[in-house]
Amino acid sequence: MFPSKSMSASNSLIPAGITMPNDHDAPLAAAILSVGDELTLGQTLDTNARWIARELTSLGVRVVEHVTVADDRAEQSSSIARLAARTQILVVTGGLGPTADDLTRFALTDVLRDRLIEDAPALATLEAWYAGRGRPMPEPNRVQALRPASAIMLDNPHGTAPGLLASIGPCRVVCLPGPPREMQPMFAQVVPTLIPHASTIATRVLSTFGLGESRIAELLGDLMDRSRNPLVGTTASGGLVSIRLRGMGLSPAALDHTEALVREILGPIVFARDATLAQHVTTRLLERNETLATVESCTGGLVGAAITENAGASQVFVGGLLTYSNALKIALAGVEPEVLDRDGAVSEACAVAMARGGRQRLATTHALAVTGIAGPDGGRDDKPVGTVWIALDSVDAPTLARRFRFPGDRASVRLWSVVSALGMLRLRLDNVQTPMLFEQPAAT
Amino acid sequence: MFPSKSMSASNSLIPAGITMPNDHDAPLAAAILSVGDELTLGQTLDTNARWIARELTSLGVRVVEHVTVADDRAEQSSSIARLAARTQILVVTGGLGPTADDLTRFALTDVLRDRLIEDAPALATLEAWYAGRGRPMPEPNRVQALRPASAIMLDNPHGTAPGLLASIGPCRVVCLPGPPREMQPMFAQVVPTLIPHASTIATRVLSTFGLGESRIAELLGDLMDRSRNPLVGTTASGGLVSIRLRGMGLSPAALDHTEALVREILGPIVFARDATLAQHVTTRLLERNETLATVESCTGGLVGAAITENAGASQVFVGGLLTYSNALKIALAGVEPEVLDRDGAVSEACAVAMARGGRQRLATTHALAVTGIAGPDGGRDDKPVGTVWIALDSVDAPTLARRFRFPGDRASVRLWSVVSALGMLRLRLDNVQTPMLFEQPAAT
Repeated sequence: MFPSKSMSASNSLIPAGITMPNDHDAPLAAAILSVGDELTLGQTLDTNARWIARELTSLGVRVVEHVTVADDRAEQSSSIARLAARTQILVVTGGLGPTADDLTRFALTDVLRDRLIEDAPALATLEAWYAGRGRPMPEPNRVQALRPASAIMLDNPHGTAPGLLASIGPCRVVCLPGPPREMQPMFAQVVPTLIPHASTIATRVLSTFGLGESRIAELLGDLMDRSRNPLVGTTASGGLVSIRLRGMGLSPAALDHTEALVREILGPIVFARDATLAQHVTTRLLERNETLATVESCTGGLVGAAITENAGASQVFVGGLLTYSNALKIALAGVEPEVLDRDGAVSEACAVAMARGGRQRLATTHALAVTGIAGPDGGRDDKPVGTVWIALDSVDAPTLARRFRFPGDRASVRLWSVVSALGMLRLRLDNVQTPMLFEQPAAT
Repeated sequence: MFPSKSMSASNSLIPAGITMPNDHDAPLAAAILSVGDELTLGQTLDTNARWIARELTSLGVRVVEHVTVADDRAEQSSSIARLAARTQILVVTGGLGPTADDLTRFALTDVLRDRLIEDAPALATLEAWYAGRGRPMPEPNRVQALRPASAIMLDNPHGTAPGLLASIGPCRVVCLPGPPREMQPMFAQVVPTLIPHASTIATRVLSTFGLGESRIAELLGDLMDRSRNPLVGTTASGGLVSIRLRGMGLSPAALDHTEALVREILGPIVFARDATLAQHVTTRLLERNETLATVESCTGGLVGAAITENAGASQVFVGGLLTYSNALKIALAGVEPEVLDRDGAVSEACAVAMARGGRQRLATTHALAVTGIAGPDGGRDDKPVGTVWIALDSVDAPTLARRFRFPGDRASVRLWSVVSALGMLRLRLDNVQTPMLFEQPAAT
């Protein structure tokens, strides 16, 4: 920690020149500015903005805009000025390094119409950082001890670049270094200063499977009115539609009430709160003390990969068979050669035989089998590209098999296959028997 | 394709009202606007902006700003107006769905001071899309046939949301749906309209495996000068580092020359031009008339999924075993119980036994086996999280086994495992014996 003008979790160190945000009822508005040529050029994926947005949202702050600009002093200062004029919090990441293209401190100083001064404690900390590593501080790093006279420095325990905290009118501007492992702890440290009396935005996500986004929106009707609080929105991603609830300054009971309304309308297509399909299936299998195996052809391992995405899988998922060739469908899963001769590999009989063979040979409660034509080649008139058979065999229930016709390219057909296989298992684990499900895949 | 106001690769369909950008010498400036509450709230990571930025950069366009705003009509229109005033190209993604929070077409209409009209061909395409799936078009989807009167619609072959193309002064504004698999082909289709000189830009990508991005940059040295033509750049993604070559107005021979220089410096870490590791491995196996099987534990099917991502895989990949539990390592791959008792599942002996057992039982030329601790639990002092053993057994070569220690979270360890397994196979298939490879993983 810096001994003097340093930041701490308490607000007591804030000098008089730094004004605190007003304690009004409306949620604080925030913006995030990411700086770097590697970002505008598309060389690097910016994960900082998303991380900061999620943190701010969970703290009851309304994030109104993310912006990314290049390492360009004029671009940076005009963005800082514009965003500070419309928010109470502006978080800037990047551009605090020691090289010629690190310009954030200069751009901030321009907007403040301030002058840069050398912060003696910061310089001492920098020199100590290098001394501790047995070498002198390179001269270019000295710039990292400069700050606008009206700003204060933020300690960086994991690197050489200190952060900066300044006020532009009613907006607090915090500048943090770009590397996530340096930025994240510094952000956590400055939060109590940025958000003294956070109002609450509470969010909740309900996951659904079985209906498209537009059909869901139709069913939800007025609940999706944009002026409603809690606000209800939908997002289609990875083959599933999520219902997002966001309440501003509300009690948990108000969110409970809206959640109940959504669940009443959508019924069994809602399968979980804040969980993916794979997480939900794993949880249900754990609760039921049951196990799962997979037998995959066109998905080539994607169903197993989805199930094992979460660490808890090892208690319910024993493994599986990748029977990509017909020879292995026979040798590993015990499909009768006659089935392949008569009906082909993409057929109800083959999917059922794969599921039954897999479940028996791997000795599990359930087995999911997937066989289909992912394309782009291999389609026929009676079995076009996108035709996929999925079968579910369970120890105490009749084998279920369904034929699908998925849209899109190879990746899309494989993705839909994974989601639909897990969806079929989920319906069985949740004892849902609604025929309306699977009427249409979720539109993305 | 829409019969009338639709987009095609030719510019001939552009109506008179749509002005073309000037063909001046200075690079075109572009901005990218991403729309969605899920983005501003930090629920979803925006990968579109990065993808579009990289495409535009490779086409010689200067991307000056990325902006993300919520599903809010006023926010969207003020961002569109501001960005259109400072660029010649504005790419907007998201907000074209059928629900009440999809507001891009309205925001664009506001900025254009235009009115919305229903596009008859687009409506017909929508109705046909649903008819082809045997159900009526839900009423909310009708909004997707609306466009500002002065705009034209862009065909979406992979979903229900058509795109929009309009002109705001000298800026061409293109609005595309958010899902990447819909957005990317639509972007490619509209490029010749956005960037008249696109055809004079030639790009090439060399894929490497085995060294980190910073080491590669160090080795390439002056070749990476930003004023060079062809320009040479590096990108780390998915565990691999790609070397991008971009020539403006050059002959293929000029690119050949630069490619030869890069290959001379980097040697055998360059494995292919314009191919992924899985594609390269598949091609080499096909050329050698050889086959592959996989035996996976911690990756749960991801190696098989990677190999089968491309359609050609069925001629070389027969299938595999997902031996997630120790019981299946014994039952399916024939690992001796003593090996598991003595060395554990994450050990050289177990990986070797998995590879040998898999290759023999599945009767292939090669088998790759992966066993490791993906985390977050299960680490020990001598086998911390990230420890992964990968073995490669081949019919005519000694079994190769390597121990890795991968950084990052569960997803990261699994990704590195897949890439490293394919990388080990690639080295054998290409007869590369360079010990420097694997010295460090590619930095992400």
